[in-house]
Amino acid sequence: MTKTITLAQGNGGEENNDLIKKVFYKAFKNEILERSEDAAVIGNLAMTTDSFTVSPLFFAGADIGKLAVCGTCNDLAMMGAKPKYLTCSVIIEEGFEVESLERIVESMRAELAINGAVVVSGDTKVVPKGSVDKIFINTTGLGEIVQAGISSNNVSEEDVILINRDIGCHGATIFAAREGIEMSSTLRSDCNSLYPQVKALLDAGVEITAMRDATRGGVAAVLNEWARQSDVCIEVDEEKLPISDEVKGICEMLGFEATALANEGTFVLAIKKGSAAKALEILKSFEVCAMASVVGEVTQKYPKKVILKSPWGTSRFLETPNGELLPRIC
Amino acid sequence: MTKTITLAQGNGGEENNDLIKKVFYKAFKNEILERSEDAAVIGNLAMTTDSFTVSPLFFAGADIGKLAVCGTCNDLAMMGAKPKYLTCSVIIEEGFEVESLERIVESMRAELAINGAVVVSGDTKVVPKGSVDKIFINTTGLGEIVQAGISSNNVSEEDVILINRDIGCHGATIFAAREGIEMSSTLRSDCNSLYPQVKALLDAGVEITAMRDATRGGVAAVLNEWARQSDVCIEVDEEKLPISDEVKGICEMLGFEATALANEGTFVLAIKKGSAAKALEILKSFEVCAMASVVGEVTQKYPKKVILKSPWGTSRFLETPNGELLPRIC
Repeated sequence: MTKTITLAQGNGGEENNDLIKKVFYKAFKNEILERSEDAAVIGNLAMTTDSFTVSPLFFAGADIGKLAVCGTCNDLAMMGAKPKYLTCSVIIEEGFEVESLERIVESMRAELAINGAVVVSGDTKVVPKGSVDKIFINTTGLGEIVQAGISSNNVSEEDVILINRDIGCHGATIFAAREGIEMSSTLRSDCNSLYPQVKALLDAGVEITAMRDATRGGVAAVLNEWARQSDVCIEVDEEKLPISDEVKGICEMLGFEATALANEGTFVLAIKKGSAAKALEILKSFEVCAMASVVGEVTQKYPKKVILKSPWGTSRFLETPNGELLPRIC
Repeated sequence: MTKTITLAQGNGGEENNDLIKKVFYKAFKNEILERSEDAAVIGNLAMTTDSFTVSPLFFAGADIGKLAVCGTCNDLAMMGAKPKYLTCSVIIEEGFEVESLERIVESMRAELAINGAVVVSGDTKVVPKGSVDKIFINTTGLGEIVQAGISSNNVSEEDVILINRDIGCHGATIFAAREGIEMSSTLRSDCNSLYPQVKALLDAGVEITAMRDATRGGVAAVLNEWARQSDVCIEVDEEKLPISDEVKGICEMLGFEATALANEGTFVLAIKKGSAAKALEILKSFEVCAMASVVGEVTQKYPKKVILKSPWGTSRFLETPNGELLPRIC
């Protein structure tokens, strides 16, 4: 590991995992933490934390407030938990406009209502100019597990892999906003609360093995984590990956892989084969999930690896993203 | 309220309370939040959050890691809860030394052990130089309530007011460190885990009405919050306030009030009169609590007010601190 912290160590990919394991897991060693789920499972409770540093604060489709509530509630939903109680801790730079703060807090309120969750504890720090860039928000959430046993460690050959919607919108939106790229006005962050989709799946009795929202590191990071944690090979049909024309455009222009772009309302599911058709039907009943798709299968071809198969019969490994992706993406 | 956020709005005093009420409570309105306790009470669980921005990161008696674990575990302990599960979310500036991070994480590990708590979920963000000053840490904690009913809303004339140790050490230490003041080598932050002291009191059957650690805003802020929340008058004997010679020195030199200085291992207790002697005896069995003292009583003289009585028979109101106290104190 390097002697000083690098941006790559916050990328949601290889270097990030390395830092977490060598510094944090090493010191905090315990079984709950080491399961590496989206949220910790404590009896019938799920608990998760996230700090949000996104720049710009306001962007097409959302803002840091909506992002903070979605990010934390989604991590709970991914463990089959109903989001219930959140804490909200803000670090604000001296001189920040109160009106902007009120807009952010209003976004949080609206998104909490969608999840049926409440903020029960908070903390407000104000720091001198130059100590922080505008505002950072931490949200930590507690959820009640309604479907136990969902785990990234249990993916097997009995499952197929689904994605709930087109990928890469959040990453492409933030990149475009930050670089001042004028894109088609339809490109917007996918930032969205996933509990309603999860609830609909669970209510219909869909047999879910694992779910994970594809935030930093994108779909590529999630699939690689699952392959490694469950000791399986995940084979993905490249042409089945749902990608919008706008995101394809940004990727072609800048040489990005859509599979490495961050998402904030997009999740990967491992579903028992027999439940796949029903899951797809339910997902597609949500407007934002029009492009929901079964994208791959689970095999033992190359355990711990993800394979991307092209329509021409060729294939390559899809690796965990590495290097400096976009910092302050979430 | 001002149009832009001021440092005073993060002071733990008047302006801070005003911001919290007008922006956060207004949007997040719910009964749990509005009880304004050190931690939210959810059934038999207590939940609390804090973000730590202290500068310098390492100071006499502790560092930001120890502070983060103590701060959050202490808020749980103040509600009669055993600290159990913490989350740890860090925002690190690119270029921060890995060795410093390891020292900080090691401090957290050691302090978690004292509390018998574990970190179950984490988040690691790295932001470009200039987006944050070195490292900020959020810890959110979940505790199991072992003594229900402890509340800042229940202080009554049946109680006396105690303080567990000499006040103001953390604020004085940070101030001295930041300003490069060379003080006696015995001045050090009081940063310390309070659960062991709370457990000893509860195990002995001490009847505790309320407890609160006197962090930002100091003892003055706590006493005023209690007077207001419980609609009582708290009368404090100035000469009984435990203050070390070192802290007195800093206060005299710089015109501070020790009652407004931040603490990180000092708490105020409202104890049923009949339990006071036992509580004092138990507290004094802890080395750091040699100066534990009964400092005042609860009356109806001036409801919602705190009175400071001098040894010469005069008295004055002790107000909630206001204005720019020391930013980045915790």
